[in-house]
Amino acid sequence: MKLIHGGVTTPKGFTASGIYAGIKKKRKDMALVYSAVPAKGAGTFTTNMVKAAPVLWDLKLTKDSEYIQAIVVNSGVANACTGDEGIKNNHIMAKSVADSLQLPIDAVYTASTGVIGKQLPIEIITGAIPQLVKELDASIEAGTLAAEAIMTTDTYSKECAISCNIGGKEITIGGMAKGSGMIHPNMATLIAVLTTDISISKELLQEALSEDVRHTFNMISVDRDTSTNDSLMILANGMAGNDEIKEKNEDYYEFCKALNIVTTSLSKMIAADGEGATKLLEVTVQGAKCWEDAVSLSKSIISSNLVKAAVFGNDANWGRILCAMGYSGVEFDPYKVDLTIVSKDGNLVLVKDGMVADYSEEKASKLLAAKEVKVIADIKQGEAVARAWGCDLSYDYVKINADYRS
Amino acid sequence: MKLIHGGVTTPKGFTASGIYAGIKKKRKDMALVYSAVPAKGAGTFTTNMVKAAPVLWDLKLTKDSEYIQAIVVNSGVANACTGDEGIKNNHIMAKSVADSLQLPIDAVYTASTGVIGKQLPIEIITGAIPQLVKELDASIEAGTLAAEAIMTTDTYSKECAISCNIGGKEITIGGMAKGSGMIHPNMATLIAVLTTDISISKELLQEALSEDVRHTFNMISVDRDTSTNDSLMILANGMAGNDEIKEKNEDYYEFCKALNIVTTSLSKMIAADGEGATKLLEVTVQGAKCWEDAVSLSKSIISSNLVKAAVFGNDANWGRILCAMGYSGVEFDPYKVDLTIVSKDGNLVLVKDGMVADYSEEKASKLLAAKEVKVIADIKQGEAVARAWGCDLSYDYVKINADYRS
Repeated sequence: MKLIHGGVTTPKGFTASGIYAGIKKKRKDMALVYSAVPAKGAGTFTTNMVKAAPVLWDLKLTKDSEYIQAIVVNSGVANACTGDEGIKNNHIMAKSVADSLQLPIDAVYTASTGVIGKQLPIEIITGAIPQLVKELDASIEAGTLAAEAIMTTDTYSKECAISCNIGGKEITIGGMAKGSGMIHPNMATLIAVLTTDISISKELLQEALSEDVRHTFNMISVDRDTSTNDSLMILANGMAGNDEIKEKNEDYYEFCKALNIVTTSLSKMIAADGEGATKLLEVTVQGAKCWEDAVSLSKSIISSNLVKAAVFGNDANWGRILCAMGYSGVEFDPYKVDLTIVSKDGNLVLVKDGMVADYSEEKASKLLAAKEVKVIADIKQGEAVARAWGCDLSYDYVKINADYRS
Repeated sequence: MKLIHGGVTTPKGFTASGIYAGIKKKRKDMALVYSAVPAKGAGTFTTNMVKAAPVLWDLKLTKDSEYIQAIVVNSGVANACTGDEGIKNNHIMAKSVADSLQLPIDAVYTASTGVIGKQLPIEIITGAIPQLVKELDASIEAGTLAAEAIMTTDTYSKECAISCNIGGKEITIGGMAKGSGMIHPNMATLIAVLTTDISISKELLQEALSEDVRHTFNMISVDRDTSTNDSLMILANGMAGNDEIKEKNEDYYEFCKALNIVTTSLSKMIAADGEGATKLLEVTVQGAKCWEDAVSLSKSIISSNLVKAAVFGNDANWGRILCAMGYSGVEFDPYKVDLTIVSKDGNLVLVKDGMVADYSEEKASKLLAAKEVKVIADIKQGEAVARAWGCDLSYDYVKINADYRS
């Protein structure tokens, strides 16, 4: 299975649009994804106690709606900490899309991203929805416009797609995501929209998504801040024509495999484009007693400001990696740990059995200067492996977040 | 009770010294604190799984030694992740001090701070110890030299003292600390040395310290990285001549009060001098159901990179504060939260019942520009209060930590 050029419009029956409505100063700020036929909807959402109005709405729909047919997203304003007025505005946004597309309101997922605590400029939004609907299009370019319209401090749009053969039919999954800051998902990432033409039961679609997220979107961190708006939604409209997947058969696992390729790809794009990031950092912890231990260790490393700043400075300060492992809460023997860094220019063992290896600082610095840097920590206590993605901590992270609202 | 000018040499019977031995390039790098008579010793140390050699040594002494009479500290090299050679070097350092002062080796606490993974230059250290002993002095200036010698990226030395009347005698507590980076203590802070002339049982000294740390050193965070070397040690030599405190009587609680003033003061100095910090941030969470909830909420706010970057930019981005509260793991009603900022120029309510208050961004920005900024979050669910201290996240934090070893 391999990624193909594409996005949310690549699966059969999906159209999308992205426009400038006027919520942000200049850039595109509204996106719509639409399925020509009713689709099964599933989603995972932030675990933050403070949940944005669209998240509360989507949680209800995920539980109660028989089908979902559209997802509307605005960027610029998060509609979080906005009280009853925020809930009302979210409802108006969903209703306006539903009316324009002649759908029931509970077939419309919503998502918002941007500044917390500001009310949605609801008249600007409802005013723009007719155009958003009119511009719905099945082209790859339309998918890209949608992916661009959900960006905040992202520096590039994030989309991908995959096609494979399941149950004798070609099925396709497409996706778009935005990330950048306040990225430390727990149940989902900021905003990601996936579409697929596979036929699958709602229960198994949700299960596949929930299980996948633990290994992909929940394994990235830009700044350890879990957003109020994290939302990952998938629509499956069945237009591929395969026999509906109703049990965990071979077809189900093939779908999970394809889904994982799409979500891993989007997750890495989000990490690499973290606010101020100059490089993607991938941390693999292997030899753990159990998967949970490997997850805690890898996320602890990927989240450490000190590790991230050292990577920014191309400094192989491995003591900080061991230190971050040490406060992860996982028990291990520090004097069994091997640390290796890997980039396009080669491999280098920094630590062998918990002690500094005989390596060249110059070579280490050269490896760390690549756009993608991998750290492998082997703790030699068992068989479990986990992988986490993050980025370096640069001056620009501070600059972006000291100035964000101005 | 009030702080007085002084430090570790202020209590009766304590002398100190601080010299340049040659571990660091230029600055002073070795300190010694000595009690003329045997003292009760107590300490709290890092909970990081990866513990530095001196921490392992001190943990053993805290458990087994009848008395402690000296504390030797080096800066520049942390003696962490250094294996058997590190343990041996730590032992040589302790032995060398013990021999020079004619003490048993298990009366000498050790502490190291600096780069992880490098071996101590043990010959430089043992070569310098005679001078360190020779320069022991009871003056305030000698205490300051010691406080300076334990600094790493600290920009100023941190010391304070207090005198009060307990059991009819004047008793004094003095302290010095270093902090700056890798500061997110859990059981102790990087390195702090306290001295007192009070007479108190070893058990109660340890209990007073362990209880105090929960409210002081464990409530500060610079970067959420819990060090491998966190050590807080106190020596009580009894020279004040009070009746030995052997139970939790009035004298005990008076001592706890005085201790708290010293440790709070040192904790705030460490937070204010966090790496790259331009201001001290104090977060008070009140109205919590229990103290543990208030602690989780206040530490979550103080630790958020996004909150810290906003404070650096004098941006009253209160949504990030509510967001950080939301992912703390504590249950609360976001629509009951009031947020107020306080600085020397006045107070300003930013949020009332979870919604934006009618405040002037200009005034908020002015208040946030002060050297000390307080945030008060009232969640109106109960009576519990906790206070945490941190600092802003600036370009210099990144600069310092991208370049630390070079």
